[in-house]
Amino acid sequence: MTSQASSQEAPYLDIARRKQASRLKALHTPSTISVTVPSHLLPNDPPTPSSGPQPVHHIPGRLLSATDNEITSLPLPSLLHRLRTGDLTAETVCSAYVRRASIAQQLTNCLTEPLFIRALEQARKLDESFAKEGGKTVGPLHGLPVSVKDGFNVAGYDSSLGLASLCFKPTMTNAPLVELLESLGCVIIAKTNIPQTLSSLDSVNNVFGRTYNPFNRLLTAGGSSGGEGVLVAMSGSAIGFGTDIGGSIRVPAMCNGVFGYKPSVGRMPYGGQQLTSVQGLSRTSVQAVAGPIARSMLDVELVMREIVPRASLFAEDCIPAPRFLSVGAGPRGSNSRHRYGGMKLRGSGAHGEFVIGILRSDGNCQLLPPIANVINEVAAALRQHSQRYNVRVVDLPTPKAWTRSQSVMSKLMSVDGGATMSAMIKETGEPLVPWMETRFKHGGKPQPLTRVAEIQAQREQLEREMIRDVWGVKTDEHGRKTRGVDAIICPLAPHPVPEIERYNAVGYTSSWVLFDYPAGTVPIRDVKESDLELGQELGSDLKVLSSWDERSRELWDEKKTDRKVYLGSKLSVQCVTARLEDEKLINVMKLVSEVVQGRGRAFRGAKM
Amino acid sequence: MTSQASSQEAPYLDIARRKQASRLKALHTPSTISVTVPSHLLPNDPPTPSSGPQPVHHIPGRLLSATDNEITSLPLPSLLHRLRTGDLTAETVCSAYVRRASIAQQLTNCLTEPLFIRALEQARKLDESFAKEGGKTVGPLHGLPVSVKDGFNVAGYDSSLGLASLCFKPTMTNAPLVELLESLGCVIIAKTNIPQTLSSLDSVNNVFGRTYNPFNRLLTAGGSSGGEGVLVAMSGSAIGFGTDIGGSIRVPAMCNGVFGYKPSVGRMPYGGQQLTSVQGLSRTSVQAVAGPIARSMLDVELVMREIVPRASLFAEDCIPAPRFLSVGAGPRGSNSRHRYGGMKLRGSGAHGEFVIGILRSDGNCQLLPPIANVINEVAAALRQHSQRYNVRVVDLPTPKAWTRSQSVMSKLMSVDGGATMSAMIKETGEPLVPWMETRFKHGGKPQPLTRVAEIQAQREQLEREMIRDVWGVKTDEHGRKTRGVDAIICPLAPHPVPEIERYNAVGYTSSWVLFDYPAGTVPIRDVKESDLELGQELGSDLKVLSSWDERSRELWDEKKTDRKVYLGSKLSVQCVTARLEDEKLINVMKLVSEVVQGRGRAFRGAKM
Repeated sequence: MTSQASSQEAPYLDIARRKQASRLKALHTPSTISVTVPSHLLPNDPPTPSSGPQPVHHIPGRLLSATDNEITSLPLPSLLHRLRTGDLTAETVCSAYVRRASIAQQLTNCLTEPLFIRALEQARKLDESFAKEGGKTVGPLHGLPVSVKDGFNVAGYDSSLGLASLCFKPTMTNAPLVELLESLGCVIIAKTNIPQTLSSLDSVNNVFGRTYNPFNRLLTAGGSSGGEGVLVAMSGSAIGFGTDIGGSIRVPAMCNGVFGYKPSVGRMPYGGQQLTSVQGLSRTSVQAVAGPIARSMLDVELVMREIVPRASLFAEDCIPAPRFLSVGAGPRGSNSRHRYGGMKLRGSGAHGEFVIGILRSDGNCQLLPPIANVINEVAAALRQHSQRYNVRVVDLPTPKAWTRSQSVMSKLMSVDGGATMSAMIKETGEPLVPWMETRFKHGGKPQPLTRVAEIQAQREQLEREMIRDVWGVKTDEHGRKTRGVDAIICPLAPHPVPEIERYNAVGYTSSWVLFDYPAGTVPIRDVKESDLELGQELGSDLKVLSSWDERSRELWDEKKTDRKVYLGSKLSVQCVTARLEDEKLINVMKLVSEVVQGRGRAFRGAKM
Repeated sequence: MTSQASSQEAPYLDIARRKQASRLKALHTPSTISVTVPSHLLPNDPPTPSSGPQPVHHIPGRLLSATDNEITSLPLPSLLHRLRTGDLTAETVCSAYVRRASIAQQLTNCLTEPLFIRALEQARKLDESFAKEGGKTVGPLHGLPVSVKDGFNVAGYDSSLGLASLCFKPTMTNAPLVELLESLGCVIIAKTNIPQTLSSLDSVNNVFGRTYNPFNRLLTAGGSSGGEGVLVAMSGSAIGFGTDIGGSIRVPAMCNGVFGYKPSVGRMPYGGQQLTSVQGLSRTSVQAVAGPIARSMLDVELVMREIVPRASLFAEDCIPAPRFLSVGAGPRGSNSRHRYGGMKLRGSGAHGEFVIGILRSDGNCQLLPPIANVINEVAAALRQHSQRYNVRVVDLPTPKAWTRSQSVMSKLMSVDGGATMSAMIKETGEPLVPWMETRFKHGGKPQPLTRVAEIQAQREQLEREMIRDVWGVKTDEHGRKTRGVDAIICPLAPHPVPEIERYNAVGYTSSWVLFDYPAGTVPIRDVKESDLELGQELGSDLKVLSSWDERSRELWDEKKTDRKVYLGSKLSVQCVTARLEDEKLINVMKLVSEVVQGRGRAFRGAKM
């Protein structure tokens, strides 16, 4: 490139090159832990349909030592046990995960900020303290290597969100979640990639590029916590922390076959993020939440039990919950500390059984066959084991409030007109990434306050209807109200994991944030040949419900999509409970994973 | 009045006359329970300084039968016990309270809507059900006569808020709190008076007139739940329900010497109110809350234990709390079901003691002597009994965030510019009531959304500082954070109960709503001669802090105020805990009332 061409190019390009160079350097520092993936193992970049899925999820295992493989495969309760007993040092564990994260980055482009040097220093400090204190751990998660989405501030590092205008502007303070994790003994090894604007379901931006799905490079890795979903699926982090407002934890969990849990507001510190709109705006509209992405519900349960009871000491956006998941505090089943098997739930049924409602179509999009199949399979499996777990499964009609919530949520998420984001994008001449081209408009303005109030009033009305129609609050013979349904199982999307740039309706995930219901992704199985119904069109009884539905059907229309691309991709279901019933949700997610997968692990060799 | 004069007068006057006539009729229907207060017992209306305090609180006792007096004096646990065992019928209890409420109305003008006919019908239905079901109660509060602030919708009755434009427009549905109370077996006997606009601390409006303080007619009865405070202080309702955003439960409780508890948002249904701004606005700014006004903390505890665990089944604005105040769920002390004596609290102190921080001036207004005295006395009493109750009392410096919160809260409460209220007032030609004349501006407009976000960001910042500076979150030697203070005791206002129209700063109460901290009023004692420091000026070490402080000092300046007017008026303290630590708050309020008053009752002859 001549210097003349260079002087004409948009400023973001040079920033991106420098930022990528700096990331590459951090990826291989310190040299003692540096791993370089041999070029013959690297997939095509960018991929083409002709190159096929090019899965990479198995490659780290080939490149790592047996010890590193064992460490990064351990269920977290076992890993922490070995750290606590001194059988493993924090540095050994951190090094293993750092090497695996580095390989994951080279294969999938999932990281923004490798924090390897900082992490290894912290791990050594943990070991020193452990030795000095005669084998006493610093906290209950002593030595656990974790990752966080790029937006969480880590002092001394950028929170660029993949925007050139935010690069090389290191933040001065740690986010409260970072403070909390470190006080528990966690070691943060990396920050992970996100989409431009955080609003798309493909994690691609002009600074760091695209994060790829490790199972099939032609399919999306999901977003906005896409880097997190991929890194955890690659076992490059023991557990990761993302954020979710439209589905940004649950969608990448679905795309990468891992567990994703979006708590209710107030359970986990969200603040201390790089913001994409004016500070304080979420208090007028709708609040995003932070939550874990993990390989097992045991891992989720383990970290939530430590984080939630302490959250309100660290963050003004959290509420007290001193007995969260503590033994004896929750419904039956939460007592099963770090263990699957034999859990019995107690709920609102006539005989104390836990009532699970099945929701299928949201009324905006019909379910494509693989999704309908997996929902039916989960319902059938739960019914088959209903006595063992003390559950009752009921089919629920689609509540009108759920159908309408997608549009209200969409209005509420965009009340600021994207003015702050627009300015940040324009500052360095960035183009919009493909998915945003038709969805983001420059020049938007904040709505008047009374309009926002009007949308909030619609939300209140929908919330009331959900209590009436979904949770099925019933009045008994004495006029007393009792809960009808304890939890919901529904799809995460009407379609399987789509090809890059083709993710469609987010209503199945965004609605639960409108209602502030905790919701989570449980991976169930891979798409198989029979799901594809090759050569068959969609049933004529499935009428087109909306323009969203039309686009969703294109993902199934054999004139527009080769359905075989979905083979082997991950199928999941979503579990949902009422607002702040997070303990119930965790138990339901455990239950589903136990019933369907056996001991709830996605693809990790278990050693309990 | 000639028909010509009538045609020229503002429309609100005729509406007010008709509304008062309709209220008078309802007050004496059915005739079987009607009581008329003899005219020689009625105080001057309006009062004049020369007529003196004219206390009326003792008059109902003189006019009622021994049985009615006994019933209306029973602590609620005993009352409910006698209803449960069939020793008293719901109708007998309802009639006694209705008669007392009717007398209270005639003496203090505290009611807006007497619901006597409806209440007696409901009581009879409860009795029928009790007989038919072989002595089974309808709910845990079977037969309890309660009152609600005028804003709570009761189907078939106005929620006029004392605005002529809302009169004779009966609402169609019950507020969720009304539904919940009735499902528990409560009987709602009346709705109570409020100030025009709900924003003043004197409960006076153009439709119903002024509610008077039953202990001293020259002093304010407080607001905005002023009718509720007075009715409960007159024992005209077993327990009342008000709402609070600036202090509207706690201030009338203080003015009338009763207990007032403002919960955190989400504990008690607030919705289904006649609104004074556009629907949904509170979700963009700050949320008012509903809570009880009562004669005893045992009464508060009793109803909250039944309401809170059911609230989220009735109302979208409530959160689940299935174990609220249940035995074994809270800190030690919450186990003492309906009983005082021997409670021991468990808290965050080094040896598990419950740490109570004392806050004095908020930095905006100096404390006038009676207030400084009562805070010091409470602190001393707690210190004296610290071992017995396992508490530690610490003096806290004034946190800057508390000082600044008054102004942020004031901005947040007025983001809509009062446009809706202004239109409602103008519609019938109403003038502003005196307190509002200098404080309410017609022609206000809603703030831009980004300005509201800016105020919310200031609020977030103050919340963080409160965690750091007030709750005293401390980091132990292992970097772990622990709570430093479990609860706060502070004033409700810098001044004693002032004369009508002279209430000043609300910062001492409104700040805790900004932070969503639960807070409550505990009455301590009456003002005595020595508190008045007659002839002494304020200490010269107390510098003037603000224009609020200047006005507050006028209430003590003997050139402008005869301090003797305060003699016998009620002195209270405010208890506060962190957000959603409502169980802790109730325990602290119980503790303070036990330590200072003995068994915590304000002025009711106890029969346990």
